[in-house]
Amino acid sequence: MAPNRIGTSHCPITRVQDQHILLAHGGGGRLMNQLIETLIQPTFDNPIIQQRHDGAVFAIGDSRLAFTTDSYVVQPLFFPGGDIGSLAVFGTVNDLAMCAAKPLYLSTSFILEEGFKLDQFEQIVRSIREAADQAGVKIITGDTKVVESGKADGIFINTAGVGLVRYPINVGAHQIQANDLIVLSGDIGRHGVAILAAREGFSFEAPFASDSAPLNHCILDLIQQAIEIHCLRDLTRGGLATALVELSETGNVRFRIDESAIPVREEIRGACEILGFDPLYLANEGRFIAFIPSYCVEKALEIVNEHSPGRNATIIGRVISATQQGVILKTQIGTTRILDMQSGEQLPRIC
Amino acid sequence: MAPNRIGTSHCPITRVQDQHILLAHGGGGRLMNQLIETLIQPTFDNPIIQQRHDGAVFAIGDSRLAFTTDSYVVQPLFFPGGDIGSLAVFGTVNDLAMCAAKPLYLSTSFILEEGFKLDQFEQIVRSIREAADQAGVKIITGDTKVVESGKADGIFINTAGVGLVRYPINVGAHQIQANDLIVLSGDIGRHGVAILAAREGFSFEAPFASDSAPLNHCILDLIQQAIEIHCLRDLTRGGLATALVELSETGNVRFRIDESAIPVREEIRGACEILGFDPLYLANEGRFIAFIPSYCVEKALEIVNEHSPGRNATIIGRVISATQQGVILKTQIGTTRILDMQSGEQLPRIC
Repeated sequence: MAPNRIGTSHCPITRVQDQHILLAHGGGGRLMNQLIETLIQPTFDNPIIQQRHDGAVFAIGDSRLAFTTDSYVVQPLFFPGGDIGSLAVFGTVNDLAMCAAKPLYLSTSFILEEGFKLDQFEQIVRSIREAADQAGVKIITGDTKVVESGKADGIFINTAGVGLVRYPINVGAHQIQANDLIVLSGDIGRHGVAILAAREGFSFEAPFASDSAPLNHCILDLIQQAIEIHCLRDLTRGGLATALVELSETGNVRFRIDESAIPVREEIRGACEILGFDPLYLANEGRFIAFIPSYCVEKALEIVNEHSPGRNATIIGRVISATQQGVILKTQIGTTRILDMQSGEQLPRIC
Repeated sequence: MAPNRIGTSHCPITRVQDQHILLAHGGGGRLMNQLIETLIQPTFDNPIIQQRHDGAVFAIGDSRLAFTTDSYVVQPLFFPGGDIGSLAVFGTVNDLAMCAAKPLYLSTSFILEEGFKLDQFEQIVRSIREAADQAGVKIITGDTKVVESGKADGIFINTAGVGLVRYPINVGAHQIQANDLIVLSGDIGRHGVAILAAREGFSFEAPFASDSAPLNHCILDLIQQAIEIHCLRDLTRGGLATALVELSETGNVRFRIDESAIPVREEIRGACEILGFDPLYLANEGRFIAFIPSYCVEKALEIVNEHSPGRNATIIGRVISATQQGVILKTQIGTTRILDMQSGEQLPRIC
């Protein structure tokens, strides 16, 4: 689920009847947040949706379950490091993992455009199965719809997922505490640049591959080894910066982030300079941040580093207030600035 | 979930690389069945997806849960008797009910086309909430994506749902027994004709309203009053005929259906004659069939009749063999014919 947040809205609200959906309403930034906060969340209002997390957690009998959904509209459908099928599995698996759940079962629902090639569809279905095996989940139910040629864009996939929260752990923005350290699981920006390069046919010296990966094995390992985790968030649309701002606003907590500690590969930094992107706002599909008290952060880093999507895990900052909002970035040149959410749509259809 | 079925396939399988997706691949008939049987089901192969039902049932701790998903692409978005929002709630609620589950929680995932009117979106979101209240479920998680203008068709909605199977009941095609009576919950064809009339702007003497309705309250009442139910199926794409043929093939059972017992409103019959449709293949969104042993069928009819979508419930046929397939229709003029699934796409995008 795209997280639902409260907090100050920087955009004035104009009359709904004058407005149309913009690409930025799906971009993960300020405008999407506004749509969720002013329409979707108040209309569907209930205690569970108010949790404002990557998924919803509820109790059935003696079990706590997590439930989440995402639709995938990425273009191109196939890109270095993945395709829409593997993305649809890992994205939903990761949302369950961010609820501290062990992902168990997924649904897949296809919206196909008339004329879409059956061999491409077959390739995507097989990719879904392989990704599900890699993540350790099963696809147990599904649906197929077809719309007329010109009324969709090849294929859209929805996956919903159910997971089990086995341990007595509560993660979320409201659990973040002063002095928690902020662990980032690896270098950022690769998914966004990989999609852009594949879409626009840019050729760089080294080919960019998406970081798309399942994070559940790593998270479960942290939990099983009794690391005290206060909050988890995977970095998708809107990138690291937007995730931090959302958590700051939802949890009413303030972070200080050290930009020079954030790993960005040299070639990604170079591509961003050429293309005018800020890596802090670029999409990732295999990265997360974790809020962890300092006493167990060294052990947490060791554990995360043992998993391939966590090879470059590092501490990027600290919670400096549990009573005030704001994300303060100490830049690489030593100045400080306040981070905000992405305000427009930097790069549409990256997931 | 679109049910997954085994059984004989009447279409020759040609080489996948020469093929493209056709509208009929989403029509609920033979071609969709073939896609599920030859690609999706074998690729995702696991014991739960093999249940071949409207949803998947699995155990968590001491609880049995049902999980289902459907994407909704109906055109027009608003039609007499409902809209894409209420349809997306009732359709998924009904799939859970057909698993004998009490629907609890739904997810909603929107794919919006850039430029879609925000006030229409607001109307749909409110309709979802009202439908959820009517069905007694909560929307607890969701997602919003936006694609460029021309790459979708206004709005597509996915809902996934989780329900609780409280009672020790197993429903499914394999539970159908010889001499079971087949109860149909009401008159057929209204949703299909309502969509067609709204889409094409046909004006008939009486306006056609969809039969779209939540069926869970009625089904739960049957279960709580200890009616022995062997199988349940809601009639959606492909209509009554396709549902019967699917169940016959999956359960390896043979039915004899009395066409004159099937309720069809006079104005629907008239519209079908003018438009060349067979009501047996028209879509419904608030009708189901139940397979019930004769000793409790009278009580079952009483219960179903107490619920508004079940006002015209009646017995339409009987299981005449539990070792052979086939659906034999005794026509209104006294002849018999064998029913088959819908083979092409009678009417696209009805749900």
